[in-house]
Amino acid sequence: MGDYLRAAVIGLGSRGCGLLTTIHSIHDLKIVAVCDIMEDRLQKGIKILNDLGDTPDGYLDYRRIIDRGDIDLVYVITNWITHWEICIDFMKAGIYTAAEVCGATSLDECWELVHTYERTGTPMMLLENCCYGRTELAALNMLRQGLFGRVVYTECGYCHDLRSHICDMTHARCNQNFMRNGDLYPTHGALPMGKLLNINRGNRFVSIASMSTPAYGVQDYLQRNQPDHPLADARCKQYACGDVTTSILKCAGGELMMIRHNIALPRPYSRANLVQGTQGVLSEDCKGVHLDGVHKHEEWEPLEEVYKKYDHPLWQNYDPSANDGHGGMDYLVMDAFAEAARTKTLPPIDVYDAATYMAITTLSEDSVAMGGMPQAFPDFTRGKWTMKRPLCPTKYNLDTDEVF
Amino acid sequence: MGDYLRAAVIGLGSRGCGLLTTIHSIHDLKIVAVCDIMEDRLQKGIKILNDLGDTPDGYLDYRRIIDRGDIDLVYVITNWITHWEICIDFMKAGIYTAAEVCGATSLDECWELVHTYERTGTPMMLLENCCYGRTELAALNMLRQGLFGRVVYTECGYCHDLRSHICDMTHARCNQNFMRNGDLYPTHGALPMGKLLNINRGNRFVSIASMSTPAYGVQDYLQRNQPDHPLADARCKQYACGDVTTSILKCAGGELMMIRHNIALPRPYSRANLVQGTQGVLSEDCKGVHLDGVHKHEEWEPLEEVYKKYDHPLWQNYDPSANDGHGGMDYLVMDAFAEAARTKTLPPIDVYDAATYMAITTLSEDSVAMGGMPQAFPDFTRGKWTMKRPLCPTKYNLDTDEVF
Repeated sequence: MGDYLRAAVIGLGSRGCGLLTTIHSIHDLKIVAVCDIMEDRLQKGIKILNDLGDTPDGYLDYRRIIDRGDIDLVYVITNWITHWEICIDFMKAGIYTAAEVCGATSLDECWELVHTYERTGTPMMLLENCCYGRTELAALNMLRQGLFGRVVYTECGYCHDLRSHICDMTHARCNQNFMRNGDLYPTHGALPMGKLLNINRGNRFVSIASMSTPAYGVQDYLQRNQPDHPLADARCKQYACGDVTTSILKCAGGELMMIRHNIALPRPYSRANLVQGTQGVLSEDCKGVHLDGVHKHEEWEPLEEVYKKYDHPLWQNYDPSANDGHGGMDYLVMDAFAEAARTKTLPPIDVYDAATYMAITTLSEDSVAMGGMPQAFPDFTRGKWTMKRPLCPTKYNLDTDEVF
Repeated sequence: MGDYLRAAVIGLGSRGCGLLTTIHSIHDLKIVAVCDIMEDRLQKGIKILNDLGDTPDGYLDYRRIIDRGDIDLVYVITNWITHWEICIDFMKAGIYTAAEVCGATSLDECWELVHTYERTGTPMMLLENCCYGRTELAALNMLRQGLFGRVVYTECGYCHDLRSHICDMTHARCNQNFMRNGDLYPTHGALPMGKLLNINRGNRFVSIASMSTPAYGVQDYLQRNQPDHPLADARCKQYACGDVTTSILKCAGGELMMIRHNIALPRPYSRANLVQGTQGVLSEDCKGVHLDGVHKHEEWEPLEEVYKKYDHPLWQNYDPSANDGHGGMDYLVMDAFAEAARTKTLPPIDVYDAATYMAITTLSEDSVAMGGMPQAFPDFTRGKWTMKRPLCPTKYNLDTDEVF
């Protein structure tokens, strides 16, 4: 490594291009290579960086970036289906690898990630920005201080009206929602709540049961708003993915996590986080915290007050307006990965986490297909969750080994 | 029937005594007989009514009330285990019978209620007060007006910090939570949401999957607050019932209902109702309504504003302060039953509803015991849910037959 990290960005769709400015803002890091299989997207990405004063090389084939031999770290922001094979190629080349979030299509691809890490020793990180959300980090901070007592129950979800994306046939989500039925996008809720439950470090998911509603939301929307859209025709095959998929995950310690994938009906956004312990509760939707013996009967202390007392160190004195993207979460997660590459240490969301949380998708599809039958959850750590393992040593660490 | 309805009240524990004033306030109804197997409770109930100017006869054996031959209707407010045998005896005697809510211990007792109704023709009602809650009725009113579009998803629950009841060894809930693991009290959430989903009239529950957390809440509470309580001892057997039981119910129309039984951890009260359709959503915890094309992006219209526009007729011009008990719901449900007896018509929550919603408890226990395995839900109507059936003709009706 020279004076700065040499970064590559693969995938320049709306999310990839949107993140260029955020990644560019990371200190001592330069985006030296960008890639997309579509020429127009590639040029758009290059132009964004040119306007910021950078002159990256552009590639249509990501393998040519590996061939350069000078890349320190790569951000893979392609569609959900291609993340894994691209990540694996970079890991084999010894390049610190990060992937945007998605769900797996098979347990096999999750295992292949794990195997590749264990063979190559190349750290891999899943870029789950919501782990660095202000509310999620305040909850983590309060939990680590013992304020919730023993946490036995969590709720979460991705409750986001994405009907305009789902019906856009050029959007990856359209294709996926049309063909698959299950929780296709579990990590925004599950990963932050899983960190609170010490998943893969003293705890693990042991089973999952999922059910889905029918899919009525998008067709109803199209019939009212885009009656000429092919899927507005009631004779057309409809989306496979139910408007809402609800899953219950059971942990080795007995705790439960309930997750919703809720993206095809009109509603304000929420990740609907709920953390309940023997001595307190935090609820995103109730917008407050209640601690036993601290707050009055039936009192929710508003989150705005909670932040003042319990903001995670990462959010104390942090001005998210300085870093665009989802209120500051994007910067934190992108820098968390850069910091791991910079210090040549373990990232805060590692390959075992990536395999575990992505697996929720394929397991939920299986459970939905079997009428809600619980599915056994693989232990991607193969027993290492029962032992102390090295922690991410940077300020971005989300874990503790005090659970053993 | 004479100038007034002649009512009996069986069960004079805290709930029974608490309801005497409410039942007494119903027009053209007189409580002429009260019963409890415990003499001190019986005397307490009689005194409450004496103070209100009534002089009921008191009984230690409810069968003697049946022997009187002059009772028009009976409110059964005993513990959860004895409701059913008492109800069945009154139904066999041709007396309009209502039971306070609880869960079933077996499918057999649910079937016996149904069989008794079908053999005797005596109407039976479950006194689910939350069906008459202001929010629940506003949701029903909006749904019937089509404002939510097609409803595909609901959430609900009984989220109520009852640790002080659960650890009180004289309280029925202590015994039940100590021995059973599942959703022991499902109807406050499930029945109002089920009415919105047209359960037993054009729809039915087809399966249920449940999981439970461990039980840590009560012991943690006792160790901090009542260290001399026998159950504060960590060597003591603990409660069987998990602190939270979460269930997903699948409907014949594909819709889902997610329910929590959440009574052993500190938190403010909520029934956590959520109604999601293709054109709108109501959320109790987000305290608002969002209608597609009506409200701005990300806007929740506060429930207080929603009530002004969409209060159910029962709540328009209704002053709940005039009738004690859970903000007015108790009066409405008690009068709903009296109105059925008065008009000799079907009650709004009938024997099929009673059997269906009580069955959630025993089915959730089975599912929890089997690791979340979905359980088939019996059709207590034996097919009549697919046909139009007579509606409750009074203002308290909660159903529609327009779903066929």
